[in-house]
Amino acid sequence: MNTKSHQFLYLQIADRLEKQILDEVLKAGDKLPSVRMVCREQGLSMSTVTQAYYELESRSLIETRPRSGYYVCLPPVKRLAVPQTSNPSATDGLLPPDDLVSQVYMDREDPANTLFSLGMPHDDFLPIARLNKGLIQAMRNLPASGTGYEPTQGNENLRREIAKWSFGWGADFTEKDLITTSGCMNAISYALLALTKPGDTIAIESPAYFGILQLAKSAGLQVLELPTNAITGIELDALKKALSTNKIKVCLFVSNFNNPCGSSMPDEHKRAAVKLLEHYHVPLIEDDIHGDLYFSNNRPTTCKTYDESGLVLYCNSVSKTLAPGYRVGWIAPGKFKDQVIKLKRYHAISSAPLTSEVVAIFLKNGRYENHLRKLRQTLYHNSMKYIGAIANYFPEGVRVSQPQGGYFLWLELDKSVDTAELYHQAMKHQISIAPGRMFTLQPQFDHCMRLSFGLPWTAQLEKDLQQLGKLVKAMQKSTI
Amino acid sequence: MNTKSHQFLYLQIADRLEKQILDEVLKAGDKLPSVRMVCREQGLSMSTVTQAYYELESRSLIETRPRSGYYVCLPPVKRLAVPQTSNPSATDGLLPPDDLVSQVYMDREDPANTLFSLGMPHDDFLPIARLNKGLIQAMRNLPASGTGYEPTQGNENLRREIAKWSFGWGADFTEKDLITTSGCMNAISYALLALTKPGDTIAIESPAYFGILQLAKSAGLQVLELPTNAITGIELDALKKALSTNKIKVCLFVSNFNNPCGSSMPDEHKRAAVKLLEHYHVPLIEDDIHGDLYFSNNRPTTCKTYDESGLVLYCNSVSKTLAPGYRVGWIAPGKFKDQVIKLKRYHAISSAPLTSEVVAIFLKNGRYENHLRKLRQTLYHNSMKYIGAIANYFPEGVRVSQPQGGYFLWLELDKSVDTAELYHQAMKHQISIAPGRMFTLQPQFDHCMRLSFGLPWTAQLEKDLQQLGKLVKAMQKSTI
Repeated sequence: MNTKSHQFLYLQIADRLEKQILDEVLKAGDKLPSVRMVCREQGLSMSTVTQAYYELESRSLIETRPRSGYYVCLPPVKRLAVPQTSNPSATDGLLPPDDLVSQVYMDREDPANTLFSLGMPHDDFLPIARLNKGLIQAMRNLPASGTGYEPTQGNENLRREIAKWSFGWGADFTEKDLITTSGCMNAISYALLALTKPGDTIAIESPAYFGILQLAKSAGLQVLELPTNAITGIELDALKKALSTNKIKVCLFVSNFNNPCGSSMPDEHKRAAVKLLEHYHVPLIEDDIHGDLYFSNNRPTTCKTYDESGLVLYCNSVSKTLAPGYRVGWIAPGKFKDQVIKLKRYHAISSAPLTSEVVAIFLKNGRYENHLRKLRQTLYHNSMKYIGAIANYFPEGVRVSQPQGGYFLWLELDKSVDTAELYHQAMKHQISIAPGRMFTLQPQFDHCMRLSFGLPWTAQLEKDLQQLGKLVKAMQKSTI
Repeated sequence: MNTKSHQFLYLQIADRLEKQILDEVLKAGDKLPSVRMVCREQGLSMSTVTQAYYELESRSLIETRPRSGYYVCLPPVKRLAVPQTSNPSATDGLLPPDDLVSQVYMDREDPANTLFSLGMPHDDFLPIARLNKGLIQAMRNLPASGTGYEPTQGNENLRREIAKWSFGWGADFTEKDLITTSGCMNAISYALLALTKPGDTIAIESPAYFGILQLAKSAGLQVLELPTNAITGIELDALKKALSTNKIKVCLFVSNFNNPCGSSMPDEHKRAAVKLLEHYHVPLIEDDIHGDLYFSNNRPTTCKTYDESGLVLYCNSVSKTLAPGYRVGWIAPGKFKDQVIKLKRYHAISSAPLTSEVVAIFLKNGRYENHLRKLRQTLYHNSMKYIGAIANYFPEGVRVSQPQGGYFLWLELDKSVDTAELYHQAMKHQISIAPGRMFTLQPQFDHCMRLSFGLPWTAQLEKDLQQLGKLVKAMQKSTI
């Protein structure tokens, strides 16, 4: 205890809690007792306890979670460095490692595998009984129980509820702005089909989601990966420079809780990026699939929030939040709406009314927000546990992203560690990871990997992370 | 009665029935009393009545329907000529009339419109209560009630049941051959994406389904329309000539109950076409969406039945038979399977497990076949009623296709009748038709139109056909 502690009661409380955190009595991700409870138990005033908690927040030891309370952050001594800003080459890239991606997908088929590789909510996190009730309600609501075609633009109830929902983060859609799709990648695929032809160049973050790389290459596009910061996302200077060459036909950013590197563009970056794109008349496909999975107090804005000219095509779905198998996604294509509706009609005629209606019901009666609140807590808690385990079990010097939402940690290991090789070694222990080379067309992330924290935390899971750390250590040593 | 009637009892019976048919006591599409019932009521032997019915069949007055009995054909005096074999130009085509198609789609939105324009089963024809039961069963069957992703290739139960089903018409799929899609157009779209790049040429029937024209043009393809016979489909000589130019990248045929012209390729044509395509190494996308809706005794074969080299990509769905809104279709892409799976993953990740499972349940327990039996009867009956009404209400000289299955009649009117103008005039009476120019990129079908007989037959419907005939007569007169 320092001398100040003798002066102020709140500092005494704060110091005692700090000690508990540093001693790992209170572990990263643990919930602190509520202010009310501490008052009652220790006979203290509300203001004293509140001030103590503020103090701990200012020391970056704890943080608030909306409507939930205070939680222990990762202890400062164990804070790991974040991955470095990427510096991809502007030259032509490799082909996507399709075989590796297919192999990783196949890992799903054995339920004994621990799937750190795939980013989706575990079944345990889904409100399945309520969804089933919703489905029965949807059968009753819909004309002909949802067996008929619906208008190509998609279920009107769903579009209205998404429009209402979008008010919360300033996109202010109307139902007319939205078109439903078969998940978020399907939305992105229509956007790409509407905006590009083979040979065009698309600018994206680096690292980037492998599905985007594969889709772009299969559409015959040139892919320009741009330098990306693990905290703030795409580097604006690099974006400006790329745009000034006039070769970019379209940009595609995952602006919030990026897959894989966890970055989120700050509001001012989003605003500035949109201004830049407007200046150069280049459309932006915005993939906001993790936007609702924020760990902080507020839903982040999107680039679409700042879009005045209709150049942003906003894409989202419930595949990472509610029900991947429902295949419900949407796009707000701005001024490209007519093209996207036509493409949807040509490629699929219409969406399935039933699952769209279930999602509309969930949004309308607040079940979606209730569910998300729990899911966000779980994911946040998991991310803390994972980071703690990595700090404990991985070699010194490992760099780890600090996502403020979503599903993914991005790890930068020692250059001597080949994560594609690590993947094969880990699979011998039935542990599936996503090697770094899946996320780029450049030779830059062979020592990186993506870990999903979308699995329930268990003793076995911790053992698997420990095993993974052991394998990394062995590989690292073997080349020194 | 002729002299023969005095000699043979069966001919007496046949002649009496013929008189009833010609007097329209028995109308086109009416069911005849069963052989058993006639025996019992008239004290005749089975063989006499059976022979009488054979005689009527040989006079083209009645026809058998599988497991259903004997039905009155359209009386010979009223048989209408079939549309002429098309003779499209081989030069570059027009753009698809997108605005007209969009307008026709919009006609769905007012339930007061009579939609002769759109080919889908009316809600009244769908087994909605059973489908809802199936959905509840699917929720129970599927892991996590179908809320999770499924493998990209699609629901295994469904693929197995389709494979079993395909035995009936000689395609003999295994579940490994099949990939589920979001309806049949979605299957066709993956096939086109897998096989073509912008600038390639696709050869199709003429007239052709407007959705195919739009999809092909939106993919940047050159479209070569080939001469097509209203009874036997694509003209093989024309196909051979086109293939010999080596410019065709892929063919796309609707081999059974073609949309719009109702043609079906005879078995020997299917076999010959496949051989030709093998010779020139040109893949065929086969759209068999109406194949299960046959009016005769047997399910027709497909081109896929004769495919030994894996060049045929077979596409189908339940959108015209069971539940358009379920968005359940499939493709058997032959040797292009890996490409199609990848494309599906890139564009949509996976299908929705729930509705796939319902269709699997329907196939497995025979509910699908039961349902189809009724639907086929209804459609056949409707087609007879429509043809009768056209014979009664349309001007002399109208040519009408003779589909042996599916949903559509193709009408060839006097050259003076502009069916796009007719569409606008008919819409003033809330009657929606599909003008001929929707089905070609050439200036050849402006006096043709497609009528769907997928609506329940009512007095109002007959009045609408009468009104349509009146409008045609007025237009025809006005230009003579």
